[in-house]
Amino acid sequence: MNDCIFCKIIKGEIPSTKIYEDNNFLAFLDIAPVNFGHTLIIPKEHFKDTLETPDEILSELIIVGKRIGGALIKSLPAEGFNLSTNNGEVAGQVVFHTHFHIIPRRMDDGLTHWPKKEYKEGEAGEVAEKIKKAIE
Amino acid sequence: MNDCIFCKIIKGEIPSTKIYEDNNFLAFLDIAPVNFGHTLIIPKEHFKDTLETPDEILSELIIVGKRIGGALIKSLPAEGFNLSTNNGEVAGQVVFHTHFHIIPRRMDDGLTHWPKKEYKEGEAGEVAEKIKKAIE
Repeated sequence: MNDCIFCKIIKGEIPSTKIYEDNNFLAFLDIAPVNFGHTLIIPKEHFKDTLETPDEILSELIIVGKRIGGALIKSLPAEGFNLSTNNGEVAGQVVFHTHFHIIPRRMDDGLTHWPKKEYKEGEAGEVAEKIKKAIE
Repeated sequence: MNDCIFCKIIKGEIPSTKIYEDNNFLAFLDIAPVNFGHTLIIPKEHFKDTLETPDEILSELIIVGKRIGGALIKSLPAEGFNLSTNNGEVAGQVVFHTHFHIIPRRMDDGLTHWPKKEYKEGEAGEVAEKIKKAIE
């Protein structure tokens, strides 16, 4: 897509610090990392998000994510990693070209996870029924 | 594994609110949801985390995640979702049986994302060189 920053990175029109490249994917450092080594993996073909990305591309992408996650632990001060993708503006997606984040983590990095809610009696069952009916 | 809470859920020894099940995977509501509808997908076979999970299982799991993500948007008050997995205690992993979170998101849900850091001149390149050498 002409105005997509990640498509421009793929075409080399915008520079990036590359981590990995193959026929279908490019991985590069996020320029605004949560922790140093924070990597993005993108398919070379433009898809808006996970829902628009073909199954076979996602199936390959997750394997690249596993390989890079392992590499972060081997190469950095990192004992774990988060692998994630945000779908939709409400979910924190900023660039509308499918991308998975791989964030190296350490014990002292100060990052906290989202607070938890609680279901009242019967609520979980009601929510589950709605979701189940919508699975395609 | 005998002392794994997710293995017990799979065996029906601990109750869960199921969303989806097939030969290889079970999806159920997180009992302490970030937002209502927060779903976990787990492989039925026990693996500690993403790095220990075979490629072919991950490749299938991500497709189940896509399907459930779509279902959350169709069935709930949700316009997007986060799909993520935490690997290692330092990354927020609490149950050491591979699981992917699918968190439905709305504009007014108040969840914020982690703050960003900045690389100094030359730092990104140094980090990238280390990671690249460690990719297997």
